[in-house]
Amino acid sequence: MDVYECLNTRLTIREFKPDRVPIDVTTKILQAGRGAPSSRNRQPWHFVVITDSDMLKEIGAIAESGPFIAGAPMAIAVFMRDAERLDLDAGRAIQQMEIMAWSLGLGTCFVGFSDPKAELQVKQMLGVPMDFDLITVLPFGYRLDSVRGRNRKRKPMSAIAHMGRFGYPYLAR
Amino acid sequence: MDVYECLNTRLTIREFKPDRVPIDVTTKILQAGRGAPSSRNRQPWHFVVITDSDMLKEIGAIAESGPFIAGAPMAIAVFMRDAERLDLDAGRAIQQMEIMAWSLGLGTCFVGFSDPKAELQVKQMLGVPMDFDLITVLPFGYRLDSVRGRNRKRKPMSAIAHMGRFGYPYLAR
Repeated sequence: MDVYECLNTRLTIREFKPDRVPIDVTTKILQAGRGAPSSRNRQPWHFVVITDSDMLKEIGAIAESGPFIAGAPMAIAVFMRDAERLDLDAGRAIQQMEIMAWSLGLGTCFVGFSDPKAELQVKQMLGVPMDFDLITVLPFGYRLDSVRGRNRKRKPMSAIAHMGRFGYPYLAR
Repeated sequence: MDVYECLNTRLTIREFKPDRVPIDVTTKILQAGRGAPSSRNRQPWHFVVITDSDMLKEIGAIAESGPFIAGAPMAIAVFMRDAERLDLDAGRAIQQMEIMAWSLGLGTCFVGFSDPKAELQVKQMLGVPMDFDLITVLPFGYRLDSVRGRNRKRKPMSAIAHMGRFGYPYLAR
């Protein structure tokens, strides 16, 4: 899929086809995360691939904002350690994974774990050392034929983009 | 450009052709940032487009880690306000912009402003209110024919990706 088309059609997806995600597709998504730039090239990320349906159901039950993880055929948990700018590096890797997945017919939705107890449960379940931070568990699956992602509204360009100086709206052409 | 090719060829770029960036290309890059997902869809970003060469030189002089901004024909300063997860949202928008730019023949390099004095100078120069955070100034320009981006090494997949449980290396296929 063309980059422009991909970025302009991408939606956040919470419902998935039950079809399993082929291993070469999972590899491409991981490669996209691995290839992301990071502060001082530290690559502070760890990705744990989860395909066990019982485990996905359990994580869905733990994730207050992500019960739909239970319905995904695969998920990638993202952990960070030794990051100078943990969330910034994570955001860049996550976005590369989401874009790659979308171009291959899949979708995802960021699920955060703000409750420290929930984070601890996921780390214990996956055997992740305590000095890692859980950023998200991203569920992945093929999109339904009738995609029902939330096409969330965007602020107008003139409200967020400025030309030369703050307050001088960028007039999109 | 195809998404897979884009993500697998992208490099961090610090040298640019002097050619100016057409306004429709700048618009596509801004659209990519504007279309990024954000926590609770808050879209907490502001983008300031800079094309004035004196201003680019001045920012290059302020940016300890980014003197090459002076040699770029265009830059986009990214500011955030009211973000729950400021760096995470920023990282996702920045990565969408970098990918769109790469697919159109351009390149960029993340430049941070960790020195509060430098951040203040950039904010004053661009008339940005004090309650915004400066995340980066991203220089953009067409890549040289002999691209001399830094093709920085990546950790092996088995060192960062795990199958099912932390410590069980994902074996890429």
